[in-house]
Amino acid sequence: MSASEVLETRGHLMDSGVLARVLDDVLAYGGDYRIDRLDVGRAHDDESYARIEVSAADDESLARLLMRLQTHGINLVDPGQALLREAEQDGVFPDDFYSTTNLETVVRLGAAWVPVEHPEMDCGLVVEDGRVRTVPVSDVRAGQSVVCGARGVKVVLPLREHSAEERFEFMSSSVSSEKPQSLLLRQIAQQMREVKVEGGKILWVGGPAVVHTGAAPAMVALVEAGYVDVLFAGNALATHDIEASLYGTSLGVDLAAGKGVEHGHEHHIRAINQIRKAGSIAAAVEQGVLTSGVMHALVRQGTSFVLVGSVRDDGPLPDVHTDVLDGQRAMRAELPGVGFAIMVATMLHSIATGNMLPASIPLVCVDINPATVTKLADRGSAQAVGIVTDIGLFLEGLARELVPGFGSS
Amino acid sequence: MSASEVLETRGHLMDSGVLARVLDDVLAYGGDYRIDRLDVGRAHDDESYARIEVSAADDESLARLLMRLQTHGINLVDPGQALLREAEQDGVFPDDFYSTTNLETVVRLGAAWVPVEHPEMDCGLVVEDGRVRTVPVSDVRAGQSVVCGARGVKVVLPLREHSAEERFEFMSSSVSSEKPQSLLLRQIAQQMREVKVEGGKILWVGGPAVVHTGAAPAMVALVEAGYVDVLFAGNALATHDIEASLYGTSLGVDLAAGKGVEHGHEHHIRAINQIRKAGSIAAAVEQGVLTSGVMHALVRQGTSFVLVGSVRDDGPLPDVHTDVLDGQRAMRAELPGVGFAIMVATMLHSIATGNMLPASIPLVCVDINPATVTKLADRGSAQAVGIVTDIGLFLEGLARELVPGFGSS
Amino acid sequence: MSASEVLETRGHLMDSGVLARVLDDVLAYGGDYRIDRLDVGRAHDDESYARIEVSAADDESLARLLMRLQTHGINLVDPGQALLREAEQDGVFPDDFYSTTNLETVVRLGAAWVPVEHPEMDCGLVVEDGRVRTVPVSDVRAGQSVVCGARGVKVVLPLREHSAEERFEFMSSSVSSEKPQSLLLRQIAQQMREVKVEGGKILWVGGPAVVHTGAAPAMVALVEAGYVDVLFAGNALATHDIEASLYGTSLGVDLAAGKGVEHGHEHHIRAINQIRKAGSIAAAVEQGVLTSGVMHALVRQGTSFVLVGSVRDDGPLPDVHTDVLDGQRAMRAELPGVGFAIMVATMLHSIATGNMLPASIPLVCVDINPATVTKLADRGSAQAVGIVTDIGLFLEGLARELVPGFGSS
Amino acid sequence: MSASEVLETRGHLMDSGVLARVLDDVLAYGGDYRIDRLDVGRAHDDESYARIEVSAADDESLARLLMRLQTHGINLVDPGQALLREAEQDGVFPDDFYSTTNLETVVRLGAAWVPVEHPEMDCGLVVEDGRVRTVPVSDVRAGQSVVCGARGVKVVLPLREHSAEERFEFMSSSVSSEKPQSLLLRQIAQQMREVKVEGGKILWVGGPAVVHTGAAPAMVALVEAGYVDVLFAGNALATHDIEASLYGTSLGVDLAAGKGVEHGHEHHIRAINQIRKAGSIAAAVEQGVLTSGVMHALVRQGTSFVLVGSVRDDGPLPDVHTDVLDGQRAMRAELPGVGFAIMVATMLHSIATGNMLPASIPLVCVDINPATVTKLADRGSAQAVGIVTDIGLFLEGLARELVPGFGSS
Repeated sequence: MSASEVLETRGHLMDSGVLARVLDDVLAYGGDYRIDRLDVGRAHDDESYARIEVSAADDESLARLLMRLQTHGINLVDPGQALLREAEQDGVFPDDFYSTTNLETVVRLGAAWVPVEHPEMDCGLVVEDGRVRTVPVSDVRAGQSVVCGARGVKVVLPLREHSAEERFEFMSSSVSSEKPQSLLLRQIAQQMREVKVEGGKILWVGGPAVVHTGAAPAMVALVEAGYVDVLFAGNALATHDIEASLYGTSLGVDLAAGKGVEHGHEHHIRAINQIRKAGSIAAAVEQGVLTSGVMHALVRQGTSFVLVGSVRDDGPLPDVHTDVLDGQRAMRAELPGVGFAIMVATMLHSIATGNMLPASIPLVCVDINPATVTKLADRGSAQAVGIVTDIGLFLEGLARELVPGFGSS
Repeated sequence: MSASEVLETRGHLMDSGVLARVLDDVLAYGGDYRIDRLDVGRAHDDESYARIEVSAADDESLARLLMRLQTHGINLVDPGQALLREAEQDGVFPDDFYSTTNLETVVRLGAAWVPVEHPEMDCGLVVEDGRVRTVPVSDVRAGQSVVCGARGVKVVLPLREHSAEERFEFMSSSVSSEKPQSLLLRQIAQQMREVKVEGGKILWVGGPAVVHTGAAPAMVALVEAGYVDVLFAGNALATHDIEASLYGTSLGVDLAAGKGVEHGHEHHIRAINQIRKAGSIAAAVEQGVLTSGVMHALVRQGTSFVLVGSVRDDGPLPDVHTDVLDGQRAMRAELPGVGFAIMVATMLHSIATGNMLPASIPLVCVDINPATVTKLADRGSAQAVGIVTDIGLFLEGLARELVPGFGSS
Repeated sequence: MSASEVLETRGHLMDSGVLARVLDDVLAYGGDYRIDRLDVGRAHDDESYARIEVSAADDESLARLLMRLQTHGINLVDPGQALLREAEQDGVFPDDFYSTTNLETVVRLGAAWVPVEHPEMDCGLVVEDGRVRTVPVSDVRAGQSVVCGARGVKVVLPLREHSAEERFEFMSSSVSSEKPQSLLLRQIAQQMREVKVEGGKILWVGGPAVVHTGAAPAMVALVEAGYVDVLFAGNALATHDIEASLYGTSLGVDLAAGKGVEHGHEHHIRAINQIRKAGSIAAAVEQGVLTSGVMHALVRQGTSFVLVGSVRDDGPLPDVHTDVLDGQRAMRAELPGVGFAIMVATMLHSIATGNMLPASIPLVCVDINPATVTKLADRGSAQAVGIVTDIGLFLEGLARELVPGFGSS
Repeated sequence: MSASEVLETRGHLMDSGVLARVLDDVLAYGGDYRIDRLDVGRAHDDESYARIEVSAADDESLARLLMRLQTHGINLVDPGQALLREAEQDGVFPDDFYSTTNLETVVRLGAAWVPVEHPEMDCGLVVEDGRVRTVPVSDVRAGQSVVCGARGVKVVLPLREHSAEERFEFMSSSVSSEKPQSLLLRQIAQQMREVKVEGGKILWVGGPAVVHTGAAPAMVALVEAGYVDVLFAGNALATHDIEASLYGTSLGVDLAAGKGVEHGHEHHIRAINQIRKAGSIAAAVEQGVLTSGVMHALVRQGTSFVLVGSVRDDGPLPDVHTDVLDGQRAMRAELPGVGFAIMVATMLHSIATGNMLPASIPLVCVDINPATVTKLADRGSAQAVGIVTDIGLFLEGLARELVPGFGSS
């Protein structure tokens, strides 16, 4: 172990398990540690402080280990100055570029600690005009200044790692006489109301099951009541919604499986053709071709939506970004101002969005399949709260909470 | 193929796929067929008639093939008389005993076709005093007359195999402006009301998730409103319900996974000990030890329940049948009069109950896990309608439909 | 029902269940039927013949019902001539365009029945210079002649719908003394050998679990032995493979879950950056940057691969098609000559490929998740044989069968 | 918080996460803590020492919290003497009985710390003749001395909580050139060989998928080679095995789903009847009725097996314990001497066995369904190593490792 550095961290290290995870990662990366100092908060509200010497086989291994540890909010005692190098090619970072977390981050430039704009994981840090922003590898340009190595970078730990989850935990006193599922719906509804009051945007990410499970009327009600500020989805949600509007759902909904049969008939390709003919979803609304459904409600309400395609798409609809990098850029452009994100019944677009969101934005993931919910958290969106439930009943319940008169017919 | 018989069947053979399944089974059993006559109903409301000669390698293979085909309601053209043999030992049928289906069945004894009382699959047919009843192998006694071979037995096909499923299908005209999940809940609620009006009993089979998902208040409301006539469950549902009542759910409910951690603490074994001390669940209610929850409601309401144990049980509660054959007998004793069965969040007890129910009783199986739903249908309960949804939201929705004032607090 | 047509079909209608499915679909589309004639094959090897009058509310409904029924190989008795209309816009079909199946199809042009080149589902049929080919909606150009309505088109039913599945069924005589899993591996291996002997190409579609489960060495062996002619995958498979090669798998493989933690560390984004710097995967091999793994083997062997991106991708690798329509076109260009397709551990790319393949190409889908396997079949790839098993053990077993010396170390 | 105690623990508290879990549990039980002292091992091989004052609302809450914390191996600094009370009724513990963990435990009786014989979770501790043993609530008798409260009891933490898991982890150096799945099989095989060399017994717990997946020949080979010392199962495994032996598997194995159709035919009930007629499985072997399969091999080899029934059983076979408490007792009687346990494709019997096993016995759980694997660990069998894989390929691979000549035919 020829390379070593001293790190420190402060916070709820013990009961949050942060320290255990830090030490675990050191060993997992083939490094070693020595705990130099550990001042433990005696009571559970007290903060703790730890100083740890971490060593690795060589400088490169150490630099990568340090970046990894920063995901837990542990930083160099003596961070020094950030090292900047020029990108030599478009779309390529210098070899030892600093790979970002989605946590609040500051970079030491001269005397100042400059905050990173819009933290996003797995990006590089580009410094321009004294500002620091995250840039995905595909968007870096030759000549830009990129932060390299782990020095001069500090990650700021959120107050407590599991705080987002706690927000939804039931208080022991209230459960016995309550109905948990209703309570949970009420808490999410409450959080949405608060975000709106604070002027924040609510971001929805949805899969086709929103339509398959018959939740479209609930979704429309939420759009019309202003609880959807932007929707990210793929070709499938929009197509199934439009197909249902143009041709009815006369072929039925498969109740047992909670999904429609996508290639069971030719309605979907015919629906796509109609919208292509109109030119866009908005044009189809304007021309009176599309007169109901979720997409119609978004257009009428003037709500933003970003549709990004995938290799399995038929068509696609004219509004769909067929280039996934263009699609990612369009999604990123909608993120400023988002105060709450809810992901419903889609793994692909949920992970894509989770990859882009700062850890500071509360994020709820709802799916009937536990795998989707856990996969999102596994990929680094530690703030994600997963709810395994039925999409149809969930969205109807949410609409009942938020939209006066919904469901009373 | 040295043995052959001629079979016939009448009904909706074509669009129901019955005929295809019959021919498929003949080949699967290593037999062969020749279609002697097929009068096809021209329109889809007309009945069809088929006469088929079926052959097999020997008499025993043929007899077993004929029994198999009877599950599709196809019978011998010339059934002849039933062959009766005496059981030689307690708990053992004659080698060539007729193995039952769960369909309506009649047995030719002398000049009369005698209906089988309470059809149940995988049993034998015992003839006593001119009556024919299904008897499981464990309950047959030496000296009893048992129907052997496939002759003299006819199975009566229900009007249409998928009729139960159709009952819940959405009409194309009504869907577009409706909310399918609400509609489904409303249809099940309506069917429950009709069964009660007709004087039928509603049988519930439940797993511990009824408690874990926070649906106990909904379940209590349904019990008190008279929509539960008998409950089949295991030690777990009752224990978790009683534990929640005695100790509160202060340790929280795992929302993400929709389940509590069963061995996370010692509450459950302590709850079991309390009830064992009282002597029974009813005694614990009487003594004021147990004052709330589903089991309390059942006792107060005078509703029957049958708890049957399993090898993984702790305790168990004093009301639990630890002998599974005793448990099965206690369950069978509750079946007469049942007009509707609903199975919620349990695979073990759902299959056990499905095994006992005649195919004529409508059966809805609700689970968040698709595997449970399909497994039940796979095992021969063809009438089962599966609903993959969230137990908590489903039961709350059902209570809202059936119990005035529920959920309005 | 003001519109009607007479259809006919011939084949194994009864035991295959085809006729039941046809009648079912008529009712599902809101139409009605009358069976005019049904000549049943008496024995199970005999063909049957059916003539059915089908009616619908109006001409448009009827046309769409007829197209739907063609997926079962039932055609108009008097198909007449195909109706051709010009596409008026790029990327838009005429309203009543014929929507294709993936079955062998012929189109009546003048006196001749012209076979459709490379059947693909959910496309239109473009007629040019007397040839008929499938064109996806995004690729049609203004002025092209497109087949409209259902007249003048016939679908040719494959010999028996479940024939692909039968190919893998165990013969009753051989099972008792055999080991089914080994037998299954042996049958797939045998089919691969036969396809190679006949000069056909073997198409693989793979997900990142090929690498996560440790099956890369088996995959490399299969590539080197010539059993991979083309690979379709996403950014993830290639990235994980390259990351394992560049950085080792020192962070371990999560055996319990059969997957690696994708965002657990920054290796993958650093690996992507390396390849971007090299210019391409092939360039990285040439430059000595990439020296092992599946992608390395493909490059060294000169095997084609098509990588198509998705919205959740990091990077991506320089070889990845970021435009999904470009990606689909690149995939289609590799399909001619494919005689066998095997899909391993990927839902997205499997469905994308399934959408493009004619029903005549045998297709095996292997995944540990039953949902992937059933989803593919649900989407219209009726020829798909699903195998729910462990990817790692499966690929190692296949390599042991096909590659002399594999696994003997 | 009116009641408090001081606890201490020593070991790898930091990187194992033990301390975090202890503090978490204190809060989850509504208690509070103060860390009095924490001597941290500086390097990762050093032990740490912690002394913590824990408080709760009252003595009863405190006692239950202390018992809970003991599952993490943290004990009272001043444990004092164990409090003994007489059980007043058969099958009922005193209210404040000590509820056991499955960890090594010692009880202070006078001057001596007496080890608990065969630790088993959720039991009481009965003291007789100076010995202490675990007794399930159903087996306690009036007048027996039962340990009450948390005083006088210490739990001994195993060296490291995740040591069992580590045993199977891949070393970073060996993976790159290795095939992980083969390596894993090799490691389990190696552990089985070592247990046999040390004179330990290998316990198998199996579900019917052992037969459905075609792994019976592998299982037979393992029995004959002496790698099965005792088998726990239900009626289903034995019935399907015997049915396959008596009637062949001519109806095929459903490869896609990895399971046979249980009620698809009447073979299974006829097979059960045959064995009931013979009197027992052993008698059927003796009489030449049963001549092959897993159960046959067990009888021929003289290997113990315990079959315990469930409410969904048909029959059952005469060897099946129909009383689940009798079944549990028969299982417990086989546990002494077990040095390794492997659970294959069964949730019910795996959990039942996991409930009974001391944490010191290594335990591997193999299933294609991740839910089974995680459920076992959730229920308190922390030592469980889960492997999500295909049963058939896994058992064949294991037989190839352990049984010379297997698979070479």
